[in-house]
Amino acid sequence: MAQEDVFKKIVSHCKEYGFVFPSSDIYPDGLAAVYDYGPNGVELKNNIKKYWWDSMVLLHNNIVGIDAAIFMNPTVWKASGHVDAFNDPLIDNRDSKKRYRADVLIEDQIAKYEEKIDKEVKKAAKKFGDAFDEKKFRETNPRVLEHQKKRDDLHARYTEAMQGPNLEELKQIILDEGIVDPISGTKNWTDVRQFNLMFSTEFGSTAGATSKVYLRPETAQGIFVNFLNVQKTTRQKLPFGIAQIGKAFRNEIVARQFVFRMREFEQMEMQFFCQPGTEMKWFEYWKKARLAWHEALGMGNDNYRYHDHEKLAFYANAATDIEFKMPFGFKEVEGIHSRTNYDLSQHEKFSGTKMRYFDPDTNESYVPYDVETSIGVDRMFLSVMCHSYEEEKLENGSSRVVLHLPEALAPIKCAVLPLVNKDGLPEKAQEIVNDLKFHFTTHIEAKDSIGKRYRRQDAIGTPFCVTVDGQTLEDNTVTLRYRDSMEQERVPVEKLREIIEDRVSITSVLKKLSKEIEGLDK
Amino acid sequence: MAQEDVFKKIVSHCKEYGFVFPSSDIYPDGLAAVYDYGPNGVELKNNIKKYWWDSMVLLHNNIVGIDAAIFMNPTVWKASGHVDAFNDPLIDNRDSKKRYRADVLIEDQIAKYEEKIDKEVKKAAKKFGDAFDEKKFRETNPRVLEHQKKRDDLHARYTEAMQGPNLEELKQIILDEGIVDPISGTKNWTDVRQFNLMFSTEFGSTAGATSKVYLRPETAQGIFVNFLNVQKTTRQKLPFGIAQIGKAFRNEIVARQFVFRMREFEQMEMQFFCQPGTEMKWFEYWKKARLAWHEALGMGNDNYRYHDHEKLAFYANAATDIEFKMPFGFKEVEGIHSRTNYDLSQHEKFSGTKMRYFDPDTNESYVPYDVETSIGVDRMFLSVMCHSYEEEKLENGSSRVVLHLPEALAPIKCAVLPLVNKDGLPEKAQEIVNDLKFHFTTHIEAKDSIGKRYRRQDAIGTPFCVTVDGQTLEDNTVTLRYRDSMEQERVPVEKLREIIEDRVSITSVLKKLSKEIEGLDK
Repeated sequence: MAQEDVFKKIVSHCKEYGFVFPSSDIYPDGLAAVYDYGPNGVELKNNIKKYWWDSMVLLHNNIVGIDAAIFMNPTVWKASGHVDAFNDPLIDNRDSKKRYRADVLIEDQIAKYEEKIDKEVKKAAKKFGDAFDEKKFRETNPRVLEHQKKRDDLHARYTEAMQGPNLEELKQIILDEGIVDPISGTKNWTDVRQFNLMFSTEFGSTAGATSKVYLRPETAQGIFVNFLNVQKTTRQKLPFGIAQIGKAFRNEIVARQFVFRMREFEQMEMQFFCQPGTEMKWFEYWKKARLAWHEALGMGNDNYRYHDHEKLAFYANAATDIEFKMPFGFKEVEGIHSRTNYDLSQHEKFSGTKMRYFDPDTNESYVPYDVETSIGVDRMFLSVMCHSYEEEKLENGSSRVVLHLPEALAPIKCAVLPLVNKDGLPEKAQEIVNDLKFHFTTHIEAKDSIGKRYRRQDAIGTPFCVTVDGQTLEDNTVTLRYRDSMEQERVPVEKLREIIEDRVSITSVLKKLSKEIEGLDK
Repeated sequence: MAQEDVFKKIVSHCKEYGFVFPSSDIYPDGLAAVYDYGPNGVELKNNIKKYWWDSMVLLHNNIVGIDAAIFMNPTVWKASGHVDAFNDPLIDNRDSKKRYRADVLIEDQIAKYEEKIDKEVKKAAKKFGDAFDEKKFRETNPRVLEHQKKRDDLHARYTEAMQGPNLEELKQIILDEGIVDPISGTKNWTDVRQFNLMFSTEFGSTAGATSKVYLRPETAQGIFVNFLNVQKTTRQKLPFGIAQIGKAFRNEIVARQFVFRMREFEQMEMQFFCQPGTEMKWFEYWKKARLAWHEALGMGNDNYRYHDHEKLAFYANAATDIEFKMPFGFKEVEGIHSRTNYDLSQHEKFSGTKMRYFDPDTNESYVPYDVETSIGVDRMFLSVMCHSYEEEKLENGSSRVVLHLPEALAPIKCAVLPLVNKDGLPEKAQEIVNDLKFHFTTHIEAKDSIGKRYRRQDAIGTPFCVTVDGQTLEDNTVTLRYRDSMEQERVPVEKLREIIEDRVSITSVLKKLSKEIEGLDK
């Protein structure tokens, strides 16, 4: 199956099984690029958040949490650079009245040259069969070489124009390349303009003058602004970190790929403050520690890779992404950035408050350096779904859809299924649920045939099914079924907690991770 | 100490000990009526949320959670009535340029008559001493009677004017009563105008036409709009509930009393859908179940009371508040409302989607009725802080500030304190922390004298302190100190988990609550 078809299936699976619903779904026009998490989605998401939060504040003596509001003093965003420089270059088509990101139009054009090359290669491969030498073909075929040159020239010109950016040049590229609006098919373009990605609203507490406030485009500034209050009240010494989970908002023009790029999203960010000169050591530490966090979930170490940034923000001295293999390619799930003392210094400048740390070891006072780890909850959620979804062919020729969710993240850990919905079996099942539910999420499911119920739990990703039957009433044993292997075994009811709890608990993953990161250089 | 002084102390305690910081605190003008939760505040708040969430989805087979986005299709707020009717009557003073809620100005005026009466009563009480008959005095004193009449007349006139509301009449009341601006001292008032409390912003995805979207003023509509998707994907039968925790936003003109009324706040709402005609039974059930939830925390049953609404929204057929005794009086923390089928019917009307439930028992299709329980996270947080704060006089004449937090809600459950910061004690303390931290939040604190560290943990509300001393290295015992009684006992390290875990776990409170609500009529 083509990867885009797989992705479509995952999106529809998310809706059908209560993970993610399109926003305002009952209204004919819904709300573009906004999604709601359903009953299974919210539990999975909460498990991701708990795993992250505990990995920060529980595994590190020197990391504490905060929860800053979405609204902040508007000068914060002046200081952070977002008011002046958090822009996308936009262009409108006068015929379709549609608005596009100029950079995306050009990137799509670059991709088209790529597609043309691929087409030539595929055609030749088909023609020459086993005798085909792809490398040589790419190096010598005149049509391929021509496409490559056009692609490279365009890429170079585009990269140059994005410095600044040079808006006239971006428009000129669009005209020179003959890029047409996909809807109207025309080249009737306006000029390229800068468009700020922050949502704003008005606080209306004063007559005549309302004051403009922003919905935060990132959670990080809530940490920087609270640096002094947190340091003072927790009496932390450097190095120490502040962790936060919360919503952020960006007025994305091209929001796409389901929950991958949304206008409203959730971030898990940790800022690690350290002595100037030690930041590269901590950058390396957090690169490894964060990859270990991902890998401890067991979604396959080959599905991750680092992508070190070649171009850095002017204030940064190192940056890398952790990318995960999605059906639409390796994509950024998390960023680790060495931001120097830029943010705290900017707030010092704009607020007039000294953002200094007095170091008792050196008797010096300085603005700390900062290494950030920033991960999108929704992207993490998507990576888990993409990894877990499988349409599995079974030995007997039938098939099933199963979510191989990391057990610690599964929304429901155990489903208790009375074989029939009578003869005291539902009551016995409920009794088992009432005991287990205080240790891990346990649901009862009484409707439908047992086979259908197994399939349903597979599709939700429930790692364990417990079937209660006539024999249970006699000897207090049940059938325990494993999601991935579909193996079944007969076990005593009083053993269930012991068998299941360790395997499904976030604490178990944390203990494993704790050992991994203990071995890292600090 | 006067109650307002107590409240001020609580607010400053919240800042000093890392519970709540004013937003954008380093900026000279901060951000009014917005607050950030600090390291201890976020943990306490997360514990409140977990207790609520689990009490809903874990204790009830027929309640599931969701997490809808803050942004929704704008027609949702037309359907819900918020676009047309979610207004405050505002009036500006032309001299001070300040804006006020007309209703609040008048309510303050009513309170002034009340104060005048109290003053007369106090004066007379002082004068007559033991012989004073307050009841008789109130019934006969001419000045008191005059104030009472003015108060009652004003109250009646005001209540009448608020129907509609009649904006001209509200202004006339302000003029007739001679109400002056507290800042300018003048009566130079503008007309009263309606002011919508929803924040709005613009989605800018289409050229020329941006579309106005709102920040949700309540989380409830996210549940109603998802009713069909949730019912279908979870296959719940009526009655069943949908629970949600999330941020909501109101452009309050008079935001006050710390986190009690903020522009950005967090709600925990559950909508319980049931067969028409059964809603009063469920309303009674949820009244009791929700009070039991509060009481299970052990903050004193006398500190709660119901406040049944006399005036109901036109679509509601029952409503009550659960009020908690704050330093500034009994105040609403939670509301329980029987909302009939109003919301689902409105969405049916505005979306064109049938919001029906097919009842397999009666073979009928109908719009379900709904009973809502709605509690403010921040208000709950405030009630916990207000209840817990004590400046305690000790027997030796000294005093301490202690937070008697419900142990299950305390941000830190256990602090491990090496008696001295050397001789292997910090290492031993860390070893104990590394074991306990996977079971409940455990911190190490090595700085300062042991007495200072005990006081600090008292002020944060940590229920247990464990002191590691020389003897610990010999016989593996520690001193365990109890926050409330300050009693100390010597216990073996391997007993710590057993002694502490049950007392501090949310699961224990849930088990207690589970028994309470099992006994309620359904």
